[in-house]
Amino acid sequence: MDWISDPVVSRGVSEQGFSLKCQGRRVPGLAWWPEEGAAPRPVVLLGHGGTLHKRSEYILSMARRFVRHKGFAAVAIDGPIHGDRSSGPEGDPESRGVSVQAWWSNESIDRMIEDWKATLDALQSSDLVGQAPVGYWGLSMGTFFGLSFVAAEPRVRAAVLGLMGAMGSTEERQVQDARRVACPTLFLQQWDDELIPRDRALKLFDALGSRDKRLHSHPGRHIEVPREETDASEEFLAAHLST
Amino acid sequence: MDWISDPVVSRGVSEQGFSLKCQGRRVPGLAWWPEEGAAPRPVVLLGHGGTLHKRSEYILSMARRFVRHKGFAAVAIDGPIHGDRSSGPEGDPESRGVSVQAWWSNESIDRMIEDWKATLDALQSSDLVGQAPVGYWGLSMGTFFGLSFVAAEPRVRAAVLGLMGAMGSTEERQVQDARRVACPTLFLQQWDDELIPRDRALKLFDALGSRDKRLHSHPGRHIEVPREETDASEEFLAAHLST
Repeated sequence: MDWISDPVVSRGVSEQGFSLKCQGRRVPGLAWWPEEGAAPRPVVLLGHGGTLHKRSEYILSMARRFVRHKGFAAVAIDGPIHGDRSSGPEGDPESRGVSVQAWWSNESIDRMIEDWKATLDALQSSDLVGQAPVGYWGLSMGTFFGLSFVAAEPRVRAAVLGLMGAMGSTEERQVQDARRVACPTLFLQQWDDELIPRDRALKLFDALGSRDKRLHSHPGRHIEVPREETDASEEFLAAHLST
Repeated sequence: MDWISDPVVSRGVSEQGFSLKCQGRRVPGLAWWPEEGAAPRPVVLLGHGGTLHKRSEYILSMARRFVRHKGFAAVAIDGPIHGDRSSGPEGDPESRGVSVQAWWSNESIDRMIEDWKATLDALQSSDLVGQAPVGYWGLSMGTFFGLSFVAAEPRVRAAVLGLMGAMGSTEERQVQDARRVACPTLFLQQWDDELIPRDRALKLFDALGSRDKRLHSHPGRHIEVPREETDASEEFLAAHLST
């Protein structure tokens, strides 16, 4: 885990960029943590949505919430073909010039599981996080990858997922992985989602193996998740990660 | 509104039985309010489930929550053919010996709307509640009647509904009334509900006319609504009724 920028502090929140090696790839990430205090501290892994990146406004906002309100750390990495992996120095060579929709594949899921596991390994041996509870928060593409990651990673103690359905070329894989998710899960769905058909989202929620799961649905389109669920996300993860 | 028992106080909660006349019927009810303080105070109307009554354990528990935690009043009345309307002195003469399932009818809905409106009229002219915000909480049969009451009663400012679907002989009426519900609504659904098919419940949620509505679904059977939603109910109604 190489720090690739100087830490910047904003209203009590330290932020720093990093890069780590995974299977020959460079994974670009950002970490946030409280200016005060010391590890070990719980960490929330943040998976951004399609066409966005690790410092999109809502990712930054979620990160700062967990740091400021709960004293947690937060970490985001760019998805494949996104952010600094699209064109920056960390760009995947094989992804240059590839359509952003090319991430919808089983192979991309496999690579993101590896990337998140490598990130978590690095965090747990760092003096930023250490051996502490881990949560995951990611919607849309952040669930496309995150659901399979959470299924494969017993260190994740609770997850907020949603805005995604079991569909397309990956439907079978998504359902299989959903069955293996065992941690408490909050699943968000938009009743009028124009990208993810309602029945596909409900199918994915239905498949989740967690006994402790809940679905929260609201009227509105894909990106119209209300602030109420930002609050619910924060309280849900905090309840499961606070020791 | 005739008080038909002496008030009893339990840990700060006053409770008293009442009876009121509505269209020639006697409606038996219970009121709870804080021992301290004075009207006007918000009131939550509590609609119990089928085969149960106005003082079933969970109704009593919800009532005491609103009184103790929020300083509200709470009121429950027996549904048709239920509680003191089945066999007691307040029993509907026409309901004696009738199966408890006989409540599933448009006529029962119409009568319960009248009963609830008469109850609310009496409360608003009493020195127990007065002119103050009104909420409704009722699941299962409490939604079968309550949804139509809320649709017909603009004084209700927010509602918690659920464990019910648009189905059977009343399906069309339920959908029409749902479209006329305009207040903020929390709708609860049990994913494995053995009494209300999932698609029937989702159809009723879908039909709700409120722009501000949310669906919370959990695994489990009809009566297994988790405590998490008791908390959510309390906070949801309190947020809308506190002035």
